[in-house]
Amino acid sequence: MGYKAEVGLSNKHLHLKSEDIETLFGRGHTLTPTKDLKQPGQFACEEKVDIVGPKGTLKGVRVLGPARPETQVELAMTDARAIGITAPVRESGKLSGTPGIKLIGPAGEVELDYGAIVALRHIHLSPAQALEAGVKDKDIVSIQFGGERGVVFNNVLVRSGEGHESEIHLDTDEGNAAGLNNGALGEILK
Amino acid sequence: MGYKAEVGLSNKHLHLKSEDIETLFGRGHTLTPTKDLKQPGQFACEEKVDIVGPKGTLKGVRVLGPARPETQVELAMTDARAIGITAPVRESGKLSGTPGIKLIGPAGEVELDYGAIVALRHIHLSPAQALEAGVKDKDIVSIQFGGERGVVFNNVLVRSGEGHESEIHLDTDEGNAAGLNNGALGEILK
Repeated sequence: MGYKAEVGLSNKHLHLKSEDIETLFGRGHTLTPTKDLKQPGQFACEEKVDIVGPKGTLKGVRVLGPARPETQVELAMTDARAIGITAPVRESGKLSGTPGIKLIGPAGEVELDYGAIVALRHIHLSPAQALEAGVKDKDIVSIQFGGERGVVFNNVLVRSGEGHESEIHLDTDEGNAAGLNNGALGEILK
Repeated sequence: MGYKAEVGLSNKHLHLKSEDIETLFGRGHTLTPTKDLKQPGQFACEEKVDIVGPKGTLKGVRVLGPARPETQVELAMTDARAIGITAPVRESGKLSGTPGIKLIGPAGEVELDYGAIVALRHIHLSPAQALEAGVKDKDIVSIQFGGERGVVFNNVLVRSGEGHESEIHLDTDEGNAAGLNNGALGEILK
């Protein structure tokens, strides 16, 4: 039996740099946490923005904190297509060459030059959990889910180190394709 | 190497019985074909309807023809959630116990008592193609797709017989989770 971890399904969301937080929400504004996420130090915020593409708008998309060095918009492919952009599958933070998009907040707008991605599916593991699973940071693994929409996801990135905690991150397309709810167990295939 | 087939991605759509066609589009109305589908005798129609759930509306959803004995609405799970219904994963035509939904056409409305499903993923094969693939009607197989979002879909239903032609049918959630475009090749795993 391979190592098992719970899935955490990511709805469309965004991370903001401090400058964009002020533009969207007002001078001196800082993010208001509403809920801690499983990854240590990460939290959902009260703040929401509208994301505008050439063919439509995604209303009220949740901001996740804390502030980051660069603003990053994470969409499922279904979301990206709905607003008319083609967002590439990327690891978090690898934003070079990604499409821009417009953000609208209560205090202002930001026209991003880049930053819209479809998140590369990945599994977070603490160093001890990675050891137990027999994998290491940056490995590419396959993860299996059972059930009536049973799936094996290949090309899942391992992200391990301090500040990571066991959790498989999939987006809503991936979760729905596999018929998953939060907390469903996936198994790393060896 | 297993048998390979092209994928056909199904966007949300519906099949209508004759009575509902007349209610939605007018007395004596028959469907207007615009494009033949790969499955023999099946076609996309000019007609579109709005699909209304408790939390939202899917505008302009395509009708597929010909008319069927029962009206059936096929949604991706993402679509179903967007309008606030929980549609079960079902084989086409197995509508007992499925949720109802409201349809709005240019000439009238239909309040379905049942008929909203998420299509069970399946592969169509002619009798000769099934023989070549080494599978038979109603088998459950696994189908692999490569690429950066490479996936193995388990629990894929084989539908084979006269009137079927080689094609893997996935919905938009499944296609996006695997990063597929129409015509991508999937391989039946043995």
